[in-house]
Amino acid sequence: MPPHMPHAVSPLARSFPAIPPIAGVTLRVARAGYKDWGRCDLTYAELAEGTAVAGVFTRNVCCSSEVELGRANIAQGKARALVVNAGNSNAFTGYRGREAVEAIMDQVAARLACPREQVFVSSTGVIGVPLPKDKARAGVAAALIAPPCSWQDAADTIGTTDTFAKGATATAVVDGRTVTLGAIVKGSGMIAPDMATMLGYVFTDCAIAPGFLQDLLVKASAATFNCITVDSDTSTSDTVLAFATGKAGNAPLTGFDSAGADAFAAALNHVCHQLAHLVVRDGEGAQKFIAVSVTGATSDESARKVGLSIANSPLVKTAIAGEDANWGRVVMAVGKAGEPADRDTLSIGFGGTWCARKGLPLADYDEAPVAAHLKGQDITIEVDLGLGEGRATVWTCDLTHGYISINADYRS
Amino acid sequence: MPPHMPHAVSPLARSFPAIPPIAGVTLRVARAGYKDWGRCDLTYAELAEGTAVAGVFTRNVCCSSEVELGRANIAQGKARALVVNAGNSNAFTGYRGREAVEAIMDQVAARLACPREQVFVSSTGVIGVPLPKDKARAGVAAALIAPPCSWQDAADTIGTTDTFAKGATATAVVDGRTVTLGAIVKGSGMIAPDMATMLGYVFTDCAIAPGFLQDLLVKASAATFNCITVDSDTSTSDTVLAFATGKAGNAPLTGFDSAGADAFAAALNHVCHQLAHLVVRDGEGAQKFIAVSVTGATSDESARKVGLSIANSPLVKTAIAGEDANWGRVVMAVGKAGEPADRDTLSIGFGGTWCARKGLPLADYDEAPVAAHLKGQDITIEVDLGLGEGRATVWTCDLTHGYISINADYRS
Repeated sequence: MPPHMPHAVSPLARSFPAIPPIAGVTLRVARAGYKDWGRCDLTYAELAEGTAVAGVFTRNVCCSSEVELGRANIAQGKARALVVNAGNSNAFTGYRGREAVEAIMDQVAARLACPREQVFVSSTGVIGVPLPKDKARAGVAAALIAPPCSWQDAADTIGTTDTFAKGATATAVVDGRTVTLGAIVKGSGMIAPDMATMLGYVFTDCAIAPGFLQDLLVKASAATFNCITVDSDTSTSDTVLAFATGKAGNAPLTGFDSAGADAFAAALNHVCHQLAHLVVRDGEGAQKFIAVSVTGATSDESARKVGLSIANSPLVKTAIAGEDANWGRVVMAVGKAGEPADRDTLSIGFGGTWCARKGLPLADYDEAPVAAHLKGQDITIEVDLGLGEGRATVWTCDLTHGYISINADYRS
Repeated sequence: MPPHMPHAVSPLARSFPAIPPIAGVTLRVARAGYKDWGRCDLTYAELAEGTAVAGVFTRNVCCSSEVELGRANIAQGKARALVVNAGNSNAFTGYRGREAVEAIMDQVAARLACPREQVFVSSTGVIGVPLPKDKARAGVAAALIAPPCSWQDAADTIGTTDTFAKGATATAVVDGRTVTLGAIVKGSGMIAPDMATMLGYVFTDCAIAPGFLQDLLVKASAATFNCITVDSDTSTSDTVLAFATGKAGNAPLTGFDSAGADAFAAALNHVCHQLAHLVVRDGEGAQKFIAVSVTGATSDESARKVGLSIANSPLVKTAIAGEDANWGRVVMAVGKAGEPADRDTLSIGFGGTWCARKGLPLADYDEAPVAAHLKGQDITIEVDLGLGEGRATVWTCDLTHGYISINADYRS
């Protein structure tokens, strides 16, 4: 366990995938020393000229200057660099925080001789402490001349309370060329779905118009990042950015009528799906990975809201932690969601075994297969509302003593 | 600690008050044996003829038959009896659950020779197990002939995971007569504000029209029961009933133009306020009682929603458990509430000491008084949104290892 990771590696961890190089993307890391961590905490990605960018951001109204500037600068569609600071979110730091971000943008823009709005900055860590400009300046200067590093080094460096490095990769054939996607993500706590709920970065050599990349990213996020929750708390810094260098040499994708657009969209969905699941697998204190599938809702959005009500319920999450088939708590969470539901058409199951059907406990309910399922690491909760065709799946983790331990002494 | 209370008494407990007898109210308890508790679990309150009734109920759409029948029977305005079953909520039990409630109503109505809609039933405990009719019948039969018991006996008997008996009392002078209010409540987990969020019963000898009593109860609940949360989970059985026997002999209150109406309303607010606080003080695993005061909102309702977003945030609640002045998490919770807020007018404090004013950490912020405040049992969080005149206070408790311990093995 690296020294910056104070907590044991999640039992739900996955090994880091073999992500190939992406033409037009160079990764470097350095140590700014935002915290007394003794490890790199500043990640720098240099992007080829002409790289398209898209992004989705937190809806938390107390968002950071990084989010405000990033959201504004997505509009011009081009990116030359990404800087990620770990250990200080720079959120709720007023004009001093904004000046620190602008200084980083200027420093990198001067080096690359590019407009400063093509430099994207993210910061993650404690809220309310202005990012120290001197440390940032020295860290960026070191990163600009650092040797290129691996995907795993970059994934390690953007992390805070993460217990393992998280990445994903995919390929697609577009216009006769194989395009590659490589992606990294950080996130473990303060995870709730309201746009993108952590820091995630997708890089690809695919040529694609920024507007179409934005459409695809919004769509992919809706069914992945926006369908996960660890603790219902929406961060002030959450950001997912997608960068497309165009170095694969395909004819640029401009819409779904472009050849290969469906394949690229599927590959993008795949990496977003992988990253979202990895965040849940590193949920603070997580011992179990939980998929909540809701069917029979009046709409897909209604199903998602019911699923999130279940996934955010402390009583459901502690029941799963206790390996207790307490489906009554699922009934409660359905009922409090504020969405159309009818007690007398509601069915609840775990691991594919129904406990109750159409508002009644099953007379011949056998808890044995459910109990066996709940002893595993990957849990499914099935809810059928019996009202319509709406469906959604959301993902979360259980609520354990580990979450309390991690969060009762995080800042001090 | 009584044998039915598996958990240590809350450190925030309050001693049971001296509640005087209320003319027209007789309390009795018995043992139905719904659980293997070895203590009384069925509470029976007999009410004088002519007793007015009012009630507020959970908004959980998967509510129990008790709630459905109670909500329907409030309309006729009269009550002769209350039966409370502890250990089985009878929620999500379909027609069998409904039949069990109707059987209790019929049994008591036959005894009192009253319409069955004047018999109110509540049940609390595990969800999804039909209330056993035979146990209920024997328990009610025993209660009907049991000797009268004390307020504290009744308060003990309605409890489930409660660690102490909870009651409140008040008097008011109405029409030259002193009227008395006595009230008991149970609740510890599955507590979130959406109408009344536990079982609470207010008894008074005041003469008052049922419609006016209903108006006053709804109003009192809005600022008390609907402003507390333990875990954001809204129960399927929550009920608050008010019974007014009229035995004080005052001219019946019919509206705010009746002499003494204000005094009675104040007394009712007082007992509801006390009961609501006691529920938080018995919050599962609670070590600290937290009042969140929000000012400067665009409306009182907006202030309440912001307050609840803070009070329901696992990260805020664990920070308080850890005695950590992590005001950045309060910023996050304000920002995710979905209510009007502006980072640059937002101020945050603990225990009367501001940590940040108008979007900036205080340059001369001294954490020492805040740290000292957080070591206490009664914590205040102050938030000023700086936007308008809206204000609200909500109450909650911290989130500790105790909550996890209690809820990971409640049912099994």
